[in-house]
This record gives sequence, C-alpha cells and structure tokens, in this order.
Amino acid sequence: MKKYSAYLIDLDGTMYRGNERVEAAAEFVEALHRKGIPYLFLTNNSSKTQAQIAEKLSGMGIRSTQDSVFTSSMATAKYIKQLKKDARCFVIGEEGLIDAIQSEDLLITDDDADFVVVGIDRDINYEKLAAATLAVRNGASFISTNSDIAIPTERGLVPGNGALTAVITVSTGKEPIFIGKPEKIITNEALTALGFAKEQTLMVGDNYHTDILAGIRAGIDTLMVFTGVTPFEDFPKMEKKPTYHVQNLSEWMDYI
Amino acid sequence: MKKYSAYLIDLDGTMYRGNERVEAAAEFVEALHRKGIPYLFLTNNSSKTQAQIAEKLSGMGIRSTQDSVFTSSMATAKYIKQLKKDARCFVIGEEGLIDAIQSEDLLITDDDADFVVVGIDRDINYEKLAAATLAVRNGASFISTNSDIAIPTERGLVPGNGALTAVITVSTGKEPIFIGKPEKIITNEALTALGFAKEQTLMVGDNYHTDILAGIRAGIDTLMVFTGVTPFEDFPKMEKKPTYHVQNLSEWMDYI
Repeated sequence: MKKYSAYLIDLDGTMYRGNERVEAAAEFVEALHRKGIPYLFLTNNSSKTQAQIAEKLSGMGIRSTQDSVFTSSMATAKYIKQLKKDARCFVIGEEGLIDAIQSEDLLITDDDADFVVVGIDRDINYEKLAAATLAVRNGASFISTNSDIAIPTERGLVPGNGALTAVITVSTGKEPIFIGKPEKIITNEALTALGFAKEQTLMVGDNYHTDILAGIRAGIDTLMVFTGVTPFEDFPKMEKKPTYHVQNLSEWMDYI
Repeated sequence: MKKYSAYLIDLDGTMYRGNERVEAAAEFVEALHRKGIPYLFLTNNSSKTQAQIAEKLSGMGIRSTQDSVFTSSMATAKYIKQLKKDARCFVIGEEGLIDAIQSEDLLITDDDADFVVVGIDRDINYEKLAAATLAVRNGASFISTNSDIAIPTERGLVPGNGALTAVITVSTGKEPIFIGKPEKIITNEALTALGFAKEQTLMVGDNYHTDILAGIRAGIDTLMVFTGVTPFEDFPKMEKKPTYHVQNLSEWMDYI
C-alpha cells in the first residue's frame, strides 16, 4: 500500500459530528503527528476562524493548532488575492470570512467593489442582498465560499451558503465561482499551503459529494470513511470510486 | 375588431413607471368606466394591500377603487383557501400578503404549517428562511406569490421575490408553486373575481414575459403596449405574438 507524505482531513462527519468526536478520530491524528506526517484540516465552514476551529478540535482531544486548519474562507481570500492584490471586496459573511479577507490585506468595502464575496451569514438581510446584487450587475466578480445547500442543526437542515448565494445568482443571472469542496480551488490552495504535491497527498472525508469529489477533481487520492453523511449503501452507486474506503479511521492506522 | 366585455390591466409599465403616470393611462381607464366596462388592475406586487395600490392610482389621477385591484397576494390566498379552507400558513412577506391571507380567514402561524407562503419581504432574515426551509422539509406545501427575479428601484435592479424564494428551493430541492403572472393561476383567480369568461376578456400589459405570457397561457386575448420593460425591437423575436400591440394606449381608445 502506498504511503502518503501529507494528509487533507475533513472535519464534519470525519473528525466530529456536531459536538461529538467521531470514533478513532483523535488516534488517527495522533498517529500522523507521531510519524511526523503533515496534515491540514480542510473545511467548507466559512463562518469560523482558524483559531475557533482549532479550539473546538483541541477541546475534543484532537491534536490541532491554528495553522493546521484551512477553511473555505481562507481559500477564498487567497484566490482573490492572486487575481487582484489590492482587491476591493463587498462581503456577506461571518467572522471567519471577514478574518480571512483581512488576513490577506484585502479591502472590505460597501463601495465600488471589484468582488462580491458571499459566505454563510446568519445576519443576512435584504440590504446586504440588494447591495451584492447591484455590485454584481455593476461588473463585480461574484465569488462564493462554498455551494453547500444545507447545514445540519438540532432543528434539522437549515439553509447553507449555496442557498443564500442563489438569491444573487437568480436575480442577476450570473453564476458565482464557488471555492469550497467539491471545487478544486480549495484543494489546490490547501496543497500550496501544505507544501506538498498532489501525488504525495491523501484526502480523507465522509461526504462523497464534497470531500471525495474534491479529491477526484483535483487529482488527489482519496480515503472515504463512512462515519458521516454518505452511507455505505451508496458505495455501489458511485460512478467514480474513492481510492480507498473504510468503515472508520481505526482501519487505516496500519497504512499511515 | 372584437369588442371585449372586461379588461385585466397591468400596473407597472402600463399604468405607471415608478411614481410617474404612463401616457394615456388615465384616459384609457376613464373610457372603460364611461362605457361601463368592468376592469381589474392585475399586479404581481405582493407587498401592498388593495387599498394602498388604489390610493396610489387615485393619487395619479387614474380611476380606481380598492375592489378594482387584484394582487398576486390575493390570488395566493384564494388559491390556498381552495386547497384547504382552514389552512395553517407560515408566511414570509409584507403587509399586502399578510392582509390577503387574513382576508381569506387563513391562519398565520410559525408552528406546524400546512403551507409555506413566500412573498417579497424587505425584512427578510435567516431565521425566517430557516423556519420556511424546515417546514417545507417537514411536508408543508411551498407556494410563492411570483417569480419576478428583480425589482426596479432608483438604485437599480434589486432582488425580487423569485430570487428570495430560491433560498428555499435550492436548500430543499423542492420547487414552489408560483401564483403570479406568467402563471395562469393568478389570471384564472382574477377572471373568477371579475365574473367574466376568458373569451370576453382582454389582458393589457407591457411585459412580454409576465403579462402577455400570462394571457397566452390562460387562453385570453392580449394587448401589448410598449410603454414599459419590453421594447418594440423584441416584437419580431416573440414566438407567440400578443393578439394586438400598440405603442401606447391612446391607439386603443377607438376599440373600447
């Protein structure tokens, strides 16, 4: 079995479900650490900062630092910076997106924006949507952190960022560039941050339509784990299979 | 030329543009009144009540009463009432929709809704969208007053109800039943309210994709007027033509 030099690891459904740690998650990460294998936690969550996510993981006993977290907001900010170093951004989003945009020294503005950047925003209102729509009609590039249509909560599935983004898409007729999984943009940004080539890296995740497809599209080997949203019953139906699959991460310990 | 016994008349672009009266609009309505020909103003506007719209028209010197106004909100409430007399409705919308639902003695509730009813809501927030999404996933029927993607304002085109509705559509994967033009639901409800058969009635409007298509789909003859959003240059491209077309309503006075 091929040994991988670096890992990209999904969070929700792979490391935790809500506030509950997934079986074997801590041991898996601990084994990577012990063997000196670099890893990044790769999440479509755009609302939280690196520090907030690292704190959640640490609180669950999963080894992590701020630098081991890579979010769709970070990938979005890095992607925009490559397009325009001093980009003017109109931002709909929460703390994680604001923080990521500011960390790349981009300007957050309501006025004359080059980019309309949309992440999940539980303080969404009509004025934000109107301003975003006007800016896109005015020629601003339209970027969205991720296309997730729903977020699991205790109440059930509530609208995700892909659903909020649709207001602007439908109103303007312009499709956004999505950054998060399953797009390869986030994967490529994460590989750059990690400093490894795709042939050396393994993508680990529970969600076929985000994690595994992101790996497949980016040309990275994938390890699918059935501890989250995609059930094992779906495996036979997958047109493109993950490179490997396990019921839980304890089955992978010998291959690290 | 056939004489029509009743008229359905669009408002925005046909009777007024913003706060400006369209040329010949007042004379046209006055002629209908003088000849004793019944008419209804038929609008996709879901935010205003009958009384508010009648007041706007009167303020512009266009003859109208509360009873001569028929909105997408009224059609929505009447449609729901036919499906379930004591329907429980979770409502996203403004005064016009609330008023219409209450006028049909339907129950507005946050709890255990039979119907999720969406109209334009400039006080939209995440909690409303989440509650609507949860209700639709829970089996509530999903109804939207109209599919307009944009509303013209002094600032430019801002999101219309069709764009807001998309949050719920994208998040749940369920398509709403749209009520307003170009759907025939609103036209049929208006004909019932007017008390005339479709063969006796003429639909007048400026917007090919809403007014004229609504007439065509409902099997009503149509009079297109080029005082609003659809330019005369588009006429040759229309696959199904309106029954009649005029540059402005003064050209139609002899046929009333």
